[in-house]
Amino acid sequence: MKIGIVDTMFARYDMAKDAIDELKSNMAGIGVVRYTVPGIKDTPVAAKKLLEEQSCDIVMVFGMPGKEETDKMCAHEASQGIILAQLMTNKHIIEVFVHEDEVSSEKELAKLMERRARAHARNVIKLLYYPKNLTRDAGMGKRQGHDDVGPIKIK
Amino acid sequence: MKIGIVDTMFARYDMAKDAIDELKSNMAGIGVVRYTVPGIKDTPVAAKKLLEEQSCDIVMVFGMPGKEETDKMCAHEASQGIILAQLMTNKHIIEVFVHEDEVSSEKELAKLMERRARAHARNVIKLLYYPKNLTRDAGMGKRQGHDDVGPIKIK
Amino acid sequence: MKIGIVDTMFARYDMAKDAIDELKSNMAGIGVVRYTVPGIKDTPVAAKKLLEEQSCDIVMVFGMPGKEETDKMCAHEASQGIILAQLMTNKHIIEVFVHEDEVSSEKELAKLMERRARAHARNVIKLLYYPKNLTRDAGMGKRQGHDDVGPIKIK
Amino acid sequence: MKIGIVDTMFARYDMAKDAIDELKSNMAGIGVVRYTVPGIKDTPVAAKKLLEEQSCDIVMVFGMPGKEETDKMCAHEASQGIILAQLMTNKHIIEVFVHEDEVSSEKELAKLMERRARAHARNVIKLLYYPKNLTRDAGMGKRQGHDDVGPIKIK
Amino acid sequence: MKIGIVDTMFARYDMAKDAIDELKSNMAGIGVVRYTVPGIKDTPVAAKKLLEEQSCDIVMVFGMPGKEETDKMCAHEASQGIILAQLMTNKHIIEVFVHEDEVSSEKELAKLMERRARAHARNVIKLLYYPKNLTRDAGMGKRQGHDDVGPIKIK
Repeated sequence: MKIGIVDTMFARYDMAKDAIDELKSNMAGIGVVRYTVPGIKDTPVAAKKLLEEQSCDIVMVFGMPGKEETDKMCAHEASQGIILAQLMTNKHIIEVFVHEDEVSSEKELAKLMERRARAHARNVIKLLYYPKNLTRDAGMGKRQGHDDVGPIKIK
Repeated sequence: MKIGIVDTMFARYDMAKDAIDELKSNMAGIGVVRYTVPGIKDTPVAAKKLLEEQSCDIVMVFGMPGKEETDKMCAHEASQGIILAQLMTNKHIIEVFVHEDEVSSEKELAKLMERRARAHARNVIKLLYYPKNLTRDAGMGKRQGHDDVGPIKIK
Repeated sequence: MKIGIVDTMFARYDMAKDAIDELKSNMAGIGVVRYTVPGIKDTPVAAKKLLEEQSCDIVMVFGMPGKEETDKMCAHEASQGIILAQLMTNKHIIEVFVHEDEVSSEKELAKLMERRARAHARNVIKLLYYPKNLTRDAGMGKRQGHDDVGPIKIK
Repeated sequence: MKIGIVDTMFARYDMAKDAIDELKSNMAGIGVVRYTVPGIKDTPVAAKKLLEEQSCDIVMVFGMPGKEETDKMCAHEASQGIILAQLMTNKHIIEVFVHEDEVSSEKELAKLMERRARAHARNVIKLLYYPKNLTRDAGMGKRQGHDDVGPIKIK
Repeated sequence: MKIGIVDTMFARYDMAKDAIDELKSNMAGIGVVRYTVPGIKDTPVAAKKLLEEQSCDIVMVFGMPGKEETDKMCAHEASQGIILAQLMTNKHIIEVFVHEDEVSSEKELAKLMERRARAHARNVIKLLYYPKNLTRDAGMGKRQGHDDVGPIKIK
């Protein structure tokens, strides 16, 4: 299996490095192709090119939208493009975005970015190799980066 | 007939289980294929893959958008993708989303999720086997999960 | 000519019935195919199926978005899908939506829904049979359901 | 060259008439095909039909979004459709929208609509016959309808 | 390699000139095709035409959205179109937009526009000729026009 990795120069932390480390630690011999673009709006076509021109089986897209209104809009437009690229290729593109204002300190931000990158790398392995394991976690309130919320407590 | 079921690990209740139970209780011998993905934005391509690669006749997508602004945006993007996937395949994908803030307690939320899942499962059976029955309810203010509102009272 | 009619169980008034009555009263021998779906987001693919699988020449989609923010968003997503379905088929889909909060009483709402349904049915006949008549009304401030606003008064 | 003209019965001023006059005054023998639809959301498919079924080289779409929130949303959805129609055909569709609340009196509105229609008609002629002339005005702060703003004043 | 340049008459500064200068200074013999359109919503199809009809390898789109709400919406719609055009062609279109209200004086605005245009021209050269160099800057908080923010400071 070959995994595409798209990331940006705009982001302030190298999530791709963590994700690649996690992928290689969990699955020996997995192939990785990396493609860095300037900003988040350049990621949808980069992901599609990896799927169609580099025969990747799945792509992870890493992005860090800034705090401004415009940044939120860019992330929204990128997300729409990423969903469209998946529908055009019938392959998954796992979007790993961390909003710069999700936490309040730079230290927490770095920690969140590493955790989310690694958690989604493990999701990618499950999607490719053990899809049934995902169903075991269906409806279980799983989160990536932040702690799991868990299922609804009825009593 | 073969029904695709897409759901997420993000959701905090297993709506798919209720829907599958409802489908099987109402229509003996109905086929079901289940596909769990990490989050709501992964659902459009999963639904399309079930329609095109697993020959499903219809797909149900279960999602539970959280309370934050970002969660609402994710649900919006997923909905756009789900509509597009339908237009690309000429098949129905029934979106079964329950917003975490639709009701105020966890207990009510679980109840709402079960009811909506089961009600839409019955809609799926009607769409596939008894489409004329749906027309009987046209304009009747039907709801799924919450009580029906009913038609406008003119007098 | 064959006219597709898509409507929902969610709506609280049967606009399709009025539209079909108006169509048949104005154009003897016109064909009508009706397709009812659960909610407004199910309408785009239903319209496209009528155009492509049932050889309809045009489709009318009837919907009644509710008062909540979520309802407005559903209507927006449906509208985007309806425009896309038209671009994929090169045929018109006339969207006949009445927002539940356009008027203040249930009685007015029913009246508005009937008037809008009938007015758009007449528009459909013009689009199919007398397109030149529409140009006669270009820029004339025509409305469907509410009274016409009329052209700008310059003096 | 053949120019498609799409407009609506909803608008309160006949911009198409002014544009056609401007086109014919500036370019003898230019062909024009006119297509009037009920409202702004019907314009994208009308424009695409003119490009693909009537062999138009370019299309102008005239619309007048009203003052309400819903009207703004309709204009947004139409604009998205118009951009998509261009990408599907590789031809220009010049959107000429005047928002009813851009100016405060009906008299100014009519004047604005005429000026914008005529200015865009001249743009269409440049795009078709003298594309290099447009580059001469690149970055010059040109407006259609309102006065030009002009380039940034550095000193 | 051949680079397409799309810009507008609406913008109040000629960013394309700066970008072309930067491209030619950094890469001898690079080809450039320029295409000016009236406004920002005309840019997506212009970019796609350069990629498909003029065999450009990449396109840069220059735009300057104004300060009004409507201008923001136009920029959003253009961005969606630019992302879609990339997905339809599997080629990059680098969006170089400067919002008129990003800075407070006309002098700063001109300076920002020149810097962003030149920075993105250098990105284009990297994407085409030295893609590996972009990965060296992955997650480094690079900005175009404004000063780089740099990577997260963990200690």
